[in-house]
Amino acid sequence: MKQKLIFTNLVGEAIDTLVGELGNPQVVVVADTNTAQFVLPILRNDSKAVADARFISIKSGDANKNLDELQTVWRELSAMEATRSTIVINLGGGVVSDLGGFAAATFKRGMRCINVPTTLLAAVDAAVGGKTGINFNGLKNQLGSFYEPDAAIISTIFFNTLPEQQILSGYAEMLKHGLLENPDTLAKLLKYSPVYPVFDSAALMPLLEANVLVKANIVDKDLTESGLRKALNLGHTIGHAFEAYSYEQKSPIAHGYAVAWGLVTELVLSDILLGFPSETLHQFADYVNKNYGAYPITCDDYPALIAAMRQDKKNTNPSDINFTLLEAVGKPRIDVVVSDDKIKAALDIYRDLMHLA
Amino acid sequence: MKQKLIFTNLVGEAIDTLVGELGNPQVVVVADTNTAQFVLPILRNDSKAVADARFISIKSGDANKNLDELQTVWRELSAMEATRSTIVINLGGGVVSDLGGFAAATFKRGMRCINVPTTLLAAVDAAVGGKTGINFNGLKNQLGSFYEPDAAIISTIFFNTLPEQQILSGYAEMLKHGLLENPDTLAKLLKYSPVYPVFDSAALMPLLEANVLVKANIVDKDLTESGLRKALNLGHTIGHAFEAYSYEQKSPIAHGYAVAWGLVTELVLSDILLGFPSETLHQFADYVNKNYGAYPITCDDYPALIAAMRQDKKNTNPSDINFTLLEAVGKPRIDVVVSDDKIKAALDIYRDLMHLA
Repeated sequence: MKQKLIFTNLVGEAIDTLVGELGNPQVVVVADTNTAQFVLPILRNDSKAVADARFISIKSGDANKNLDELQTVWRELSAMEATRSTIVINLGGGVVSDLGGFAAATFKRGMRCINVPTTLLAAVDAAVGGKTGINFNGLKNQLGSFYEPDAAIISTIFFNTLPEQQILSGYAEMLKHGLLENPDTLAKLLKYSPVYPVFDSAALMPLLEANVLVKANIVDKDLTESGLRKALNLGHTIGHAFEAYSYEQKSPIAHGYAVAWGLVTELVLSDILLGFPSETLHQFADYVNKNYGAYPITCDDYPALIAAMRQDKKNTNPSDINFTLLEAVGKPRIDVVVSDDKIKAALDIYRDLMHLA
Repeated sequence: MKQKLIFTNLVGEAIDTLVGELGNPQVVVVADTNTAQFVLPILRNDSKAVADARFISIKSGDANKNLDELQTVWRELSAMEATRSTIVINLGGGVVSDLGGFAAATFKRGMRCINVPTTLLAAVDAAVGGKTGINFNGLKNQLGSFYEPDAAIISTIFFNTLPEQQILSGYAEMLKHGLLENPDTLAKLLKYSPVYPVFDSAALMPLLEANVLVKANIVDKDLTESGLRKALNLGHTIGHAFEAYSYEQKSPIAHGYAVAWGLVTELVLSDILLGFPSETLHQFADYVNKNYGAYPITCDDYPALIAAMRQDKKNTNPSDINFTLLEAVGKPRIDVVVSDDKIKAALDIYRDLMHLA
């Protein structure tokens, strides 16, 4: 894999080393209005490269991951006469690395790029694997490219000030990686809680390191999502439906929570269709219930949820609903088409497992 | 190399075969206002895939290779619910394949793409090798990506209606490839003339086929221009300076003509600095003089020309002027820094060879 993964809490030092290895070219930091205010001043203290760097600010929030903000970055790169050797450091959550990464991928056909994720979700997801992009025409990630950054610097120092909900949101993606990896990795993840009794970032670090490597290994084998990488969609067909439906209902839920509940329901499907072990399913459902609570649905919600699943962009045939499921922990099967009846049965069992029924 | 190269004058048939091999997905043709009028109707007759395809029109001309037109293409792809499997057929010159290719590279992180060049210049240059992009902020090809199309269909049937000047413009890039390849390829090119006595497309086809493969082989070894691909800059440092200067002087010359004269002058530099054979230089200069005439410069123009060379984006150090030169035909040397005095001497000899002095 092209991308170097550095796990450290000495972020400033790691940046200076990397910039030195790349021959000390021009450096530009892309940050959003939040990270510019709270994180950038600290890094300016700790890193000569960041202190000397140019700075481009984008508006925070997924609603601003759009062509207007991308044009701002392109224009500023052009104004500072950035070259292919210039290093773009994306300092922020997924919005920053997606948009800043896409700018780096396309300015002069590709600049150097280092991701410094400041949220747990970005550390385990957006910052690694080279998916860059923006929303366009009302659709998420409609424009973008596969472009691996030179490096990602993964640390937990930025997480201590994150709201509990954001930590849990990121941890849901870690649980997904654990399910895709092996029983041992999953067991370690289920032993830890990011919120009970309190958030312990020191204990999180080794789990995070192993977890990022799970994703990196999958991406390494299939950068452009022609096969294996689809395994990373586990939990997301139903998760996205929960998320989309919650927006329709005007009481939005966080992405990671939707994924956690989507994972439970897709493990139910895996149990019904592929013999995924019931004991592990129950253990997983209990963990999610304890940490995330439950998304309260009734059978009246089923038709709208299934309609949302049918719109998933992963479906190749518009009438089919396509899943990544598990035969066992660490044994994904991609492109499983499931009938509406089976999905309804799984939603029934989800409600049962979450004590909603 | 990922890109399939098909040399045929049965273009419609070739498109249908390719589309069939790719599983007959949705097809969209991107063309400019010229090719839409003159070429598309013919292909609609000859190809079922083109007859059934959606169609996106962009404005013709390099001035329209911009973000506005790119947004048009993105929006229409979005409106027709194009997917990663959809095939974009770029039907036109370099503007169409650059812009349509960039749209294909970035819509949903990459669609399928077939280039059908309708000019000689596009056939030997833009359509092959995966450089896509648009102009931005007043600078040429400022945004783009390296994205190899699935195929290029190279034919001469569209060239018979091209103005003589456009044929010569494309042929200059062919001469460059001949210089980079070997004495035999070059000799064949110098034996043919695209205008004396008249344009003979049947005799051009075998030359064109060999020529496209020269470029394809170089690109294959170095897609992202980290080294060897820089050889393709031969003739372009001085050529671009001639071109830029002609625009400043309000009497613009065609790109290919500028390259032809740039090649002569850079062969002079190659002769002075690297011992490139004088006999070949003289033979080449005579050929260019006979077919392209001469760009009439005097020593008063030297300072402005050298200033233009200094602004070339290929220079890594802004004070240096960087060249690709030849030790002999087929023996390029990249990243040769040349002093202003040597450049002036070469311009003197260019004027002499072209009977201007």
